[in-house]
Order: sequence, then C-alpha cells, then structure tokens
Amino acid sequence: MEAEAKLVVKRLGLRAVEGRLPPHAPGAVYSGEAHGLAVDLVTYGKCRTTGVDNVGTAGAVLVTAAAAQALEPDLFISAGTAGGFARRGGAVGDVYLCAAFANHDRRIAIPGFDKYGVGRVDTGGAAGVEAVGEAARALGLKQGVVTTGNSLDCLERDMEMIEANGADVKDMEAAAVAWTASWFGVPVLGVKAVTDIVDGDKPSHDEFLENLGAACKALEVAVPRVLEHLAGSESLRLALLEPRGAETGSS
Amino acid sequence: MEAEAKLVVKRLGLRAVEGRLPPHAPGAVYSGEAHGLAVDLVTYGKCRTTGVDNVGTAGAVLVTAAAAQALEPDLFISAGTAGGFARRGGAVGDVYLCAAFANHDRRIAIPGFDKYGVGRVDTGGAAGVEAVGEAARALGLKQGVVTTGNSLDCLERDMEMIEANGADVKDMEAAAVAWTASWFGVPVLGVKAVTDIVDGDKPSHDEFLENLGAACKALEVAVPRVLEHLAGSESLRLALLEPRGAETGSS
Repeated sequence: MEAEAKLVVKRLGLRAVEGRLPPHAPGAVYSGEAHGLAVDLVTYGKCRTTGVDNVGTAGAVLVTAAAAQALEPDLFISAGTAGGFARRGGAVGDVYLCAAFANHDRRIAIPGFDKYGVGRVDTGGAAGVEAVGEAARALGLKQGVVTTGNSLDCLERDMEMIEANGADVKDMEAAAVAWTASWFGVPVLGVKAVTDIVDGDKPSHDEFLENLGAACKALEVAVPRVLEHLAGSESLRLALLEPRGAETGSS
Repeated sequence: MEAEAKLVVKRLGLRAVEGRLPPHAPGAVYSGEAHGLAVDLVTYGKCRTTGVDNVGTAGAVLVTAAAAQALEPDLFISAGTAGGFARRGGAVGDVYLCAAFANHDRRIAIPGFDKYGVGRVDTGGAAGVEAVGEAARALGLKQGVVTTGNSLDCLERDMEMIEANGADVKDMEAAAVAWTASWFGVPVLGVKAVTDIVDGDKPSHDEFLENLGAACKALEVAVPRVLEHLAGSESLRLALLEPRGAETGSS
C-alpha cells in the first residue's frame, strides 16, 4: 500500500522517476541509492475503478512482472505489513525476514495441483534460510514463513492451510511476488511488519487500521537496516542471489 | 488448462508459434485464422516446480499481461471449464457466454477495498451485456456472470460471495484476465463450459475430473461458433470492442 511505501521513500531519500515501468503497469517507481546499492521502490499503484491501492496477488503479479522486465533487479524485497500469530510468538510491531513463501487460499484437491496451490517458494534453499536467519539475529528481527491470501480476514479453513504452511506471518502479496519473480530467475526476500494478531480477539480490519501507522514506522526503520546488512554481508548476498542462475529460480 | 486448449487448437487448425511471448512468460501460443479473424490461442503454461498447468489467477495475470503486450489483441476470450449452479439452472456440459466478471475469494472489509476485492468488470457495459445476450440466444448458449476464485472447492463463505456476485458459473481465471486486460484497454468475453455442479451433491474435484472431457468437447464446438458469430455480427463486435478507447477499459 502507498501508506507502507511513503515513509521508506522519505527515509531512503528516493525520488519518483516517471516512465521506468511499461505504460500499462499500475505501479510507481522511486529510485535512489542506499549503502552503495541501487534501489528502486515500486508500489502496486491504485485501482482505476475503485481508486484504492492494488492490494492482493493480481496487482502483485502484474507489477512484479513489469518491474522484473523493466528494472532487471538482482533481488526483490517484498516489504509491507502483515498479520502475526500469538501462538507463534508474534506481536504488533514485530518485523520478520522471510525467505519462504506459500499460499493459504488456493485449495485444489487434485494430486499435483494441491502442491501447486500451496505454491511454496524457498529463496536460496537451506543456505538462504540460514543466511536470512543470521541476518535476522544480527538485526534483532524475527525470521519466518510468510503465507499469502487475497482476504484480510481469516476463515477456519484458511487457518488450517496457514498452520500446514508453518507460517509466521500472513500477508496479501508476498507469495505472488515470489512466484512471479521465479519466472525471471530473481530471488525474493520478505520484510513484513505485524499490524494485527490473526489468532487474537480483535477483528483483523479494525486492528489493521489501528496499527497501520505503527507498523509502517517499524518498516521505515527496518528496511534501510536490511539494505545496509545486505550491502555488507557477502554470505547473505550469495545465499539470496545465487539461485538467479538456477534452473527453476524457485528452489 | 492444456486439456481445454488441445481440442480447440485442432478444430481451428491453429499452429504452435514459438517466440511470440516474452521469454519469461509461461504460456504457449497457437496461431491461425478463423472466419476471417486472426486468432492466437494462448495457454497459461505449466508450473516449473510442480509440472502441472498454471491454473488460477496468478498465471492468468502473468500470461494475460504478456499476451496483451506481445500480441496486441482487440479482444480477449477467456475460454475454459467452470462450475455451474443447479439453483441457477446450470447443468454439466452447458456453455455460457459471459460479459461480467467478479471475484469471490477476496474479502477485504474496509470501505472501498470491499468493492475492489469483488473487482467487478463489465465488458461493454449495458450494450455489451445486451449484445452478448443476443449472441447467446442466436447460438443456443447461456449467458451469465462468471465468478473467479483460486480454489476448486467452494466454502460456505465463498458461496455467499458467489450469490452476492449474482454468478452463474465459477472458474479460476476469468476475473483476473478481465482485470489485467482492463489495464491494456482490451475487453474480455468469457466462454465457459460446465464440468461440475457446485451446489450439487458430488465433490467438485471428482465431478470435475469425470466431466472434463465432455466439457472440453462442448468448448471445442462452442468456441469456433462464437468466433464465427463475432466475425459476422457488427453489433456484437461494436459492443465488445468499443470500450478499448474508453478511459477505464473496465466499464
């Protein structure tokens, strides 16, 4: 969402650059440099019919594909807000680094398609998970699996899938970014700040709106620190970036 | 799915053409001519990790965007199989023409975002609905609203959304095709053959597999007839194609 992006744009001193995405793509691009890394922050843009931000997987696929083509990044960072889980120790304001992505609202009970529906993507495989874990410890952040769905609420059946995915945070875009990026051989790192506790006692949409500002603040602080760590840590960069040349890009 | 495409490719005498989509796009293109219309049939391709067909909205967005860019069509036809509803008079083998698209698994209970979640797209507005209705009557097909979700099954909550959408058929791609196409100003017509009755007494995945062959046969017959009608009917073409120049492309 635009709200999630604004503070990071300001903190990193990025500038809006017109015309870097193809004309059909809904997103906006803010470019600059941070800790020696060239950074393009891309938003999902706004829906032309309803005027709200393009949340969810459709916008994520469309903008990720356009950004991969036009900006040719070495790494995508899917940064944003997410729901956390009390039973997994999550609290509002926590920031998670995520190298693993899955879906919880794609139920296809046909052998093969069931696995496709979950659509698990692990950036950098075991080495990626280990390096991201080290980065999280060094930065005082959490590490976890992010699970993606197109609804802000969480049905009982969604929760079963989320538990099966071993997920720590629930968002609406990350797995779609990871799947799309895999077609371009680009790895993805998730940076997710918790706005609401999914297995808590408040409705997600109330808690989400209440804590959106605080979570955006947490992202504003975390994203530049992740970039700094990424610039300085060869092991993290290697673990994340090596899959680029791999056959599938999603292992 | 590939199974849905094969018979139509053969019936229309289309030929596989390499290199027409960008290298990252998963789909395949079969090209030819039918009733004086240049036709490109594009599949969603197969998942690199699981090897199954890229069903669902993520593949639909990715391939629709790639096809819109590379093939510059005047009209997309989202053809494929779908679930029908006994309470709306649906039966296995029925073929529906659809000018209206919505989603039933994107629940976002925040004002503005709720409407975005449903993501209603009407091709050609009232004129489109009327012209498609006339085409359906002329061809002995049904007309209806198609509702899209990423699951083959149907939860109680999905069914509530489906009823709110006034939907006649349930698929896994059409609304994503329509939303993506709207960014390129390209209208979409749905042609959907019923494989299973969602509000019937059999589990969708059993009935789906049982009737997939028969529904593909129905598509094989219907799609060329729709193309023939499209080629010969000025009012249908105008109603569908006029939105191309419109501001939103989705009204």
